[in-house]
Amino acid sequence: MSETGLNMSRRIRRTPYTDKVEQHGVRGFSVVNHMLLPKAYGPSVEEDYWHLREHVQIWDVACQRQVEIRGPDAARLVQLMTPRDLRKARQGQGLYVPLIDENAGMINDPVLLKLEDDRFWLSIADSDVLLWAKGLAVGAGFDVAIDEPDVSPLAIQGPKATALMTELFGDEIRKMPYFGFAAFDMLGTRQIIARSGYSKQGGFEIYLEGSHLGGNLWDLIWEAGRKYNISPGCPNLIERIEGGLMSYGNEFTRANNPLECGFNKMCYLGDDIDYIGKAALERVATSGPSQRLSGIRFGGGKTPPCGKPFPVTSHDGKPLGQITSGIYSPRLDCNVGLSMIIRSHWEVGTPVVVHTPDGKEREGSVSALPFY
Amino acid sequence: MSETGLNMSRRIRRTPYTDKVEQHGVRGFSVVNHMLLPKAYGPSVEEDYWHLREHVQIWDVACQRQVEIRGPDAARLVQLMTPRDLRKARQGQGLYVPLIDENAGMINDPVLLKLEDDRFWLSIADSDVLLWAKGLAVGAGFDVAIDEPDVSPLAIQGPKATALMTELFGDEIRKMPYFGFAAFDMLGTRQIIARSGYSKQGGFEIYLEGSHLGGNLWDLIWEAGRKYNISPGCPNLIERIEGGLMSYGNEFTRANNPLECGFNKMCYLGDDIDYIGKAALERVATSGPSQRLSGIRFGGGKTPPCGKPFPVTSHDGKPLGQITSGIYSPRLDCNVGLSMIIRSHWEVGTPVVVHTPDGKEREGSVSALPFY
Repeated sequence: MSETGLNMSRRIRRTPYTDKVEQHGVRGFSVVNHMLLPKAYGPSVEEDYWHLREHVQIWDVACQRQVEIRGPDAARLVQLMTPRDLRKARQGQGLYVPLIDENAGMINDPVLLKLEDDRFWLSIADSDVLLWAKGLAVGAGFDVAIDEPDVSPLAIQGPKATALMTELFGDEIRKMPYFGFAAFDMLGTRQIIARSGYSKQGGFEIYLEGSHLGGNLWDLIWEAGRKYNISPGCPNLIERIEGGLMSYGNEFTRANNPLECGFNKMCYLGDDIDYIGKAALERVATSGPSQRLSGIRFGGGKTPPCGKPFPVTSHDGKPLGQITSGIYSPRLDCNVGLSMIIRSHWEVGTPVVVHTPDGKEREGSVSALPFY
Repeated sequence: MSETGLNMSRRIRRTPYTDKVEQHGVRGFSVVNHMLLPKAYGPSVEEDYWHLREHVQIWDVACQRQVEIRGPDAARLVQLMTPRDLRKARQGQGLYVPLIDENAGMINDPVLLKLEDDRFWLSIADSDVLLWAKGLAVGAGFDVAIDEPDVSPLAIQGPKATALMTELFGDEIRKMPYFGFAAFDMLGTRQIIARSGYSKQGGFEIYLEGSHLGGNLWDLIWEAGRKYNISPGCPNLIERIEGGLMSYGNEFTRANNPLECGFNKMCYLGDDIDYIGKAALERVATSGPSQRLSGIRFGGGKTPPCGKPFPVTSHDGKPLGQITSGIYSPRLDCNVGLSMIIRSHWEVGTPVVVHTPDGKEREGSVSALPFY
């Protein structure tokens, strides 16, 4: 048993940055893709929230593993896996792509990086997309190779990230559009940097290839970041919920279709592309989804942690959904949460009741996302 | 952040027994199949070890999720997924089955339960076998349905398990062979019990269908178990290593083939069955595996925890393997570990050096498995 309560073993993989993260006094880990994700450093998630909004942070997000798909049938397989129209995808452009199964259930929501016409990375959330892709390829006899390369993203997030990264990697970094990526020189190698990250405060992700370089890259960023008041960090629950950033396994699972998740613009339903789950998705589109991912503001004082979902009902007790991520926002001075809400009640402003495990029934209302 | 250091969220699923486990003062969790696995209760893993060897324990192993495969092509798909010859598989018989990919790399090592001729459960270790199976089925156009049913195994382990279970479920329980399973009445339902479990102390696993029954089943076992000195427990690292029980993700991964893991008897190479990875497996069988899972005894005083693998070398510094699970055994009064060891050095008795993170070079030797 480690001091952080999570048993360490090879099965729950360390990252190229774990030694650094431990030196910085990480207070706990979660597990994503069979790999450690730091979950807390400083005194509180609230202090961390304010720091992220004002300065710059370095995040070990190596658990965002890459599934590399390459070979003659790679483009065909990738299109088969997502309802998003990839015909205009180009190198240097990251694309958020829902992956769905034959019932239109969500398998994952990765970022797709088109590296070459026949080589792609899916930068994944928490499910074994590699096994899904390999199963499809083996079952259908596709000519592709599918692997997990030795690539471990390191995120630089916060309003001062651009200044810091420009200092290190030059003005080209400023010119990248949101979700764009390009290769830059660092540590004697060429590495991909994307303008992306799991916050709404701006920033970058370095897709470091070569685990042995992890410590050096961390030190490079850290030293240059001192004058920007850099701190170690991790996805911040308050900031994530305020920003409406969903988490696979929390807000949505294989039981949800992409239209419920609000991925309408990434669901192409024209006749000239085929993909797995299209027929099922067309049926949902015809009838309209029965629920939709929504924001919920609610009061009653600071909510307890959302370890189990909080039921959401109408005032007369009708089940409307459940808050799957929720926390107190010190900036908005109320609790904020994310919940699928059924169609009859998803209009912004609809009053709801949130049932927290402390026994309280809390007044709330459906809110637009992101929270302002 | 929970007191146990692991952030609770919906993504890391609670089990039907988690409330009970928390009431019993669980001291930490691991994560397997996106679900909580208790990792420690009482004062030490050593006390827990002795208790497991002498009495009976109740283990929340709901994380051993079931992948249900049913339908006209179910038997065909299951055979395609494993090199084990399933032609004589019968209902009521659990089968340990390596699952391999097209390169003969290990995907998982579940127990297969044949429920009907066209309905199977794979009771899995830590990888998303459901996505692999679904990918194969969708890719190949098989007529099957693949789901994760609401089934949560509860293990009763230890030498007094048979007496306890006989008291609750009758003499039929004694007649089941090792790995056999049958349906029994409990809590007004019919539930499957198997003579199995992740220890070498004997015992049973109840494949509880219906999460809402979890608390009641726990209480039923607990109350009847009092006179047998029952305690809450979990897979015990000392007992597991002594017993030579491997753990997917620790001792072997997709980089290993089943012959390296010692699964020779489950690798059918005759011409009359085909499965994924057969050609690759035949190549390994022809040349012989280059390494093999082995036991390592080593001294130098109590080893530190094996959070990172320990390198194993010869006395002249040649890399031989790495200990992926290792701990001090109070019964054997030495450290015991599991390691792949290269062919030139895998003979029992071969001297080795184990390099632990405290900087020590520890004398050791290759040992037979299980350890005696």
